[in-house]
Amino acid sequence: MATRGPVLIIGTGLLGTSIALALTSAGVAVQLADASPHTQALARDLGAGTLRDAGSPDPALVVVATPPDTVAAIVRGALAQFPGAVVTDVASVKTQVERGVLCAGGPLDPRHARRYVGSHPMAGSAFTGPTAADADLFAGRPWVVVPHEDSDPAAVLAVRTLATDLGAVPATMGAAEHDGAVALVSHLPQIASSLVGARLRDAQEAALELAGQGLRDVTRIAASDPKLWSAILVGNAGPVAAALRALREDLDSILEALESAERQGPTAPDTNGPIARAVQAGAEGQGRIPGKHGGAPQRYASVVVLVPDEPGNLGRLFGEIGELGVNVEDVRLEHAAGMSVGMATVSVLPGAVTALEEGLDARGWRVVPGGQEQQS
Amino acid sequence: MATRGPVLIIGTGLLGTSIALALTSAGVAVQLADASPHTQALARDLGAGTLRDAGSPDPALVVVATPPDTVAAIVRGALAQFPGAVVTDVASVKTQVERGVLCAGGPLDPRHARRYVGSHPMAGSAFTGPTAADADLFAGRPWVVVPHEDSDPAAVLAVRTLATDLGAVPATMGAAEHDGAVALVSHLPQIASSLVGARLRDAQEAALELAGQGLRDVTRIAASDPKLWSAILVGNAGPVAAALRALREDLDSILEALESAERQGPTAPDTNGPIARAVQAGAEGQGRIPGKHGGAPQRYASVVVLVPDEPGNLGRLFGEIGELGVNVEDVRLEHAAGMSVGMATVSVLPGAVTALEEGLDARGWRVVPGGQEQQS
Repeated sequence: MATRGPVLIIGTGLLGTSIALALTSAGVAVQLADASPHTQALARDLGAGTLRDAGSPDPALVVVATPPDTVAAIVRGALAQFPGAVVTDVASVKTQVERGVLCAGGPLDPRHARRYVGSHPMAGSAFTGPTAADADLFAGRPWVVVPHEDSDPAAVLAVRTLATDLGAVPATMGAAEHDGAVALVSHLPQIASSLVGARLRDAQEAALELAGQGLRDVTRIAASDPKLWSAILVGNAGPVAAALRALREDLDSILEALESAERQGPTAPDTNGPIARAVQAGAEGQGRIPGKHGGAPQRYASVVVLVPDEPGNLGRLFGEIGELGVNVEDVRLEHAAGMSVGMATVSVLPGAVTALEEGLDARGWRVVPGGQEQQS
Repeated sequence: MATRGPVLIIGTGLLGTSIALALTSAGVAVQLADASPHTQALARDLGAGTLRDAGSPDPALVVVATPPDTVAAIVRGALAQFPGAVVTDVASVKTQVERGVLCAGGPLDPRHARRYVGSHPMAGSAFTGPTAADADLFAGRPWVVVPHEDSDPAAVLAVRTLATDLGAVPATMGAAEHDGAVALVSHLPQIASSLVGARLRDAQEAALELAGQGLRDVTRIAASDPKLWSAILVGNAGPVAAALRALREDLDSILEALESAERQGPTAPDTNGPIARAVQAGAEGQGRIPGKHGGAPQRYASVVVLVPDEPGNLGRLFGEIGELGVNVEDVRLEHAAGMSVGMATVSVLPGAVTALEEGLDARGWRVVPGGQEQQS
């Protein structure tokens, strides 16, 4: 591990303790501090590090992992207290924190400011607190490193090094760019998912029985914590509002076209009208989401297999796919209400489809058409 | 198979040919007809049935599977031509078709009307035409049977029997109820997915690199056919517009709260404000989506395992899960950009989590916390 200690972790919740566990297990000296004596003792007892006290050496790196509204003041305090330390934070919205660190109560001393670099590890859990922490929490996740204008390159490198040491994939961008990006790729999808989910609250049971994979996918992240998300969205109000206004413009044009169709009664749909254009735009945007391994978006082909719902069948299926020498790029299991059989949608490189279908067929699997199914 | 033939399939595209293949393979006599001589010959050559000609016996059941705007007239024609036959259609929107069948150009003779029952098999494929057809297309899918006021119970039973014969899960509801239900569970999610996808069209590459599973899930169905969806949405304009207006009200209250937060600058988020309430409503609605096997929604627990990206590893993983006696309820594979390892999120009954985690850990798998992860 290239990170130099001691590392002081302020805030030993899920993120702070997970970082501490990973560093400690790699032999980096970790000091722990939390406003709650109980929480910091719990993190220590989990093996995350030692509690910081008066005799502790000054840290080389400070990670502030406290609740969003406390971050800026704690970062400023740490910069003043440890004049040799690089200080970062892990809050999920960056402009507000950066402004708080650099400007709140007057501009920050430049000798302090240059040692501050924000960051945002894009990992989390449905659970909170040190007991949910794990050294592997960041494995494979993006970790955005957010320098400001006057950040010292050495400080930026220290934070990038922390990210890679923890198995994350670092990306560097400015605070405004970060906040605009997460508004689009994280905050807007959350709002859309919640809005669709909310419409189901008063739906008939019979309607819900018709739910397919499309609805399940769109609403999966609607099962989220309202307080957490209220804080995140308000903390990024500007970029989220801008994205939401743009979305609403498209929504209004669809609604207008629907209301016009409603008034006119059955007519041939306008295949170049606002609705078709909106669906087309969505498909184009969706197609830009990168594929695995950071490559260009790659269209995988899907093979759908019926899997009787008993332990061991999935193992047999994927074992036989492995025997056929085919690498599974993605997999999705789907169950219909009332059926004791599942459908496994297995995504593979297009060139592997025929061999896979024939191989599975020969081994007695029921292969279904319509991998990337469009319900209609 | 309980369906009585001969069955006449009018329209030998994906749905018609799939129905024909399933019936023919079970020994039911199937007659084929399509406006395109080429298409009907192709369906015949695929083994879907025989072409209907002057010497063919009258069908006992007619399935109209033609493009939406042609359905009503063809149903009326079939009812008149075959006075002993039950006639159904497979269009995805029902009120418009029902009105067309019963009322277009004057009310339909009651002796004909009673033999008509609409239906909507909720299956499809990214591909179209008879060559994409498969007898297993409907396995485990909902199939909505849509009688009108004067439908004969025997006719309703014949259509339900067709659905169950093809392996689908039949549900019975009226046309308005059906159209309202699919507006909520199918059409609104499609619009939301497209709207979020559209915002990515002009996004920075760097922003797209931060895409996680949440964005991928919300936008998966955005990769849809604009013409098909334009026709579907316009065909169900009333119910979709109503659902969309309700969604926009919630959207406006979120936007207003964000704009107010933007004006006021950093403040503590209102954890009982419109944003928290909207997220809460979304979670409540999402929680109503039924689980597998038609039971009440069941919260599965998730175990996340790192899987090196080579053929055979998924087989080994699921094989060992089977050896541990654990039934996998759902599975999702996720890859981060730049990583050669995937994360398999395995959903199991909550009681099986500890045994599964310990068992996999003992077998050398890296188990990650945060199954139902909430990125923040």
